[in-house]
Amino acid sequence: MFNNLTIVGVGLISGSFALALKDKGFVKHVIGVSRTKASEQKALDLGLIDEALPLEEAVKKADLIYVAIPVDATVPMMQKIMDMVTEKQIVVDAGSTKAVLCAALKDHPMRSRFVATHPMWGTEYSGPEAAVHNAFAGRACVICEKEKSDAAAVEIIENIYRALGMNIVYMDAVNHDVHAAYISHISHITSFALANTVLEKEKEEDAIFELAGGGFESTVRLAKSSPAMWAPIFMQNRDNVLDVLNEHISQLRKFKACLEKENMEYLYELMENANKIRRVLDR
Amino acid sequence: MFNNLTIVGVGLISGSFALALKDKGFVKHVIGVSRTKASEQKALDLGLIDEALPLEEAVKKADLIYVAIPVDATVPMMQKIMDMVTEKQIVVDAGSTKAVLCAALKDHPMRSRFVATHPMWGTEYSGPEAAVHNAFAGRACVICEKEKSDAAAVEIIENIYRALGMNIVYMDAVNHDVHAAYISHISHITSFALANTVLEKEKEEDAIFELAGGGFESTVRLAKSSPAMWAPIFMQNRDNVLDVLNEHISQLRKFKACLEKENMEYLYELMENANKIRRVLDR
Repeated sequence: MFNNLTIVGVGLISGSFALALKDKGFVKHVIGVSRTKASEQKALDLGLIDEALPLEEAVKKADLIYVAIPVDATVPMMQKIMDMVTEKQIVVDAGSTKAVLCAALKDHPMRSRFVATHPMWGTEYSGPEAAVHNAFAGRACVICEKEKSDAAAVEIIENIYRALGMNIVYMDAVNHDVHAAYISHISHITSFALANTVLEKEKEEDAIFELAGGGFESTVRLAKSSPAMWAPIFMQNRDNVLDVLNEHISQLRKFKACLEKENMEYLYELMENANKIRRVLDR
Repeated sequence: MFNNLTIVGVGLISGSFALALKDKGFVKHVIGVSRTKASEQKALDLGLIDEALPLEEAVKKADLIYVAIPVDATVPMMQKIMDMVTEKQIVVDAGSTKAVLCAALKDHPMRSRFVATHPMWGTEYSGPEAAVHNAFAGRACVICEKEKSDAAAVEIIENIYRALGMNIVYMDAVNHDVHAAYISHISHITSFALANTVLEKEKEEDAIFELAGGGFESTVRLAKSSPAMWAPIFMQNRDNVLDVLNEHISQLRKFKACLEKENMEYLYELMENANKIRRVLDR
């Protein structure tokens, strides 16, 4: 489909995207852009990229440019790339926040060459070593402000994500950030906070080692996630995250009140209400 | 090893235990005791038990009696069983709390026939249908107050759990409950509360359906757990659970303060500290 794909950032998402496009035969040659020589070399060694180039050359050579770096770095990087891009190229980002970026690019003369996407897939690992084959399948991919992008460009990107097994969902950027706060960002904050809770209180660390089971692991797994990736997401989506976080603290206080007052009836009620999440998870 | 195993309660844990002992050839005949005819029939249909009997007959006929019912029902049930038991029988419970039960039985004339255990395995499902083959493997099993149980009885029970692939950990009952609050009970509370948060705030339920990914699923999975099983656990381990819950709320407030004050440095620090949980999870 393409000759050259340039990935900006050589990590979990961009690396897995490059592998997927190579595996599907959608791209012949992958160029990587990274801040560090070490990551470039790692990405070359792992076969995520065929070549490492400085940004300007990498953009010039590319048919498709795929940007997946921390969201605070995405905004200036994207402005730089958009200033270089031609009518024959497509630029895609994969960031977990969309409002700030879309607002920053809304009046750019090349706006139509940009497709704003958020493939809702990831793991708690990061860096080139975290990239895997067969990523993305079975998950949603949000495309924001579709109407501001060139229709043919959107169709190409949709076809790629669909070929990877993703289900396309359309949303405006502001709405995306609201939903992402509920569905993803708050889960990460509770996991980070839960890890800190246990590490703080459980001084006998051996006991955690020995006893930690599946439930514990599943609720704190996300606490292994990269601060460099997630701190900028929380900060850029601050108002929405704060809103959900406040609600979550108030929900936890309800459990606290039940226990303090030994109110078994209300405790049951809270838990039975929570069980309704089965509708979402067991679909 | 035994002729007759009686399971009191025919659900996730007791059913999986019965299947495991049958699979290993440790027991010839399994008798089930249940509060409801429907569960008895289900357990018979699923092959978890060979026979359903009223409590008294079931205890009389058993070599080993395995009790896995909600922890508030366990205390009176156990007292009833211990009053019937002979020097040739062994009684084991599998409850998630240990202090209240061990205190209740500590002066029972047959105390030495009782082995207090907590196999740290489970899923978010409950009832006879939730029982599975090959459960328990790779997890810890806590045995409490080993010294109060007959040494030969303890050895038999240890050998059974070890044969199922479990790692035996010894603890006094009070310590067990402290650790269980950190390692298991708080994970369940945060999951229940997170489910309520999302269900409360996210009125567009379709958005959850479409967007919910792996991270969300892993943090709210435990919210599907049975209130009948978990409410009594939280209540019986109230002081410890409240202690951890207060710490968790205060950890969440630190994230809130970082966001409110846009304190990126402290946010990083909190997340980097949370990353230390890798030591526990990636062992």
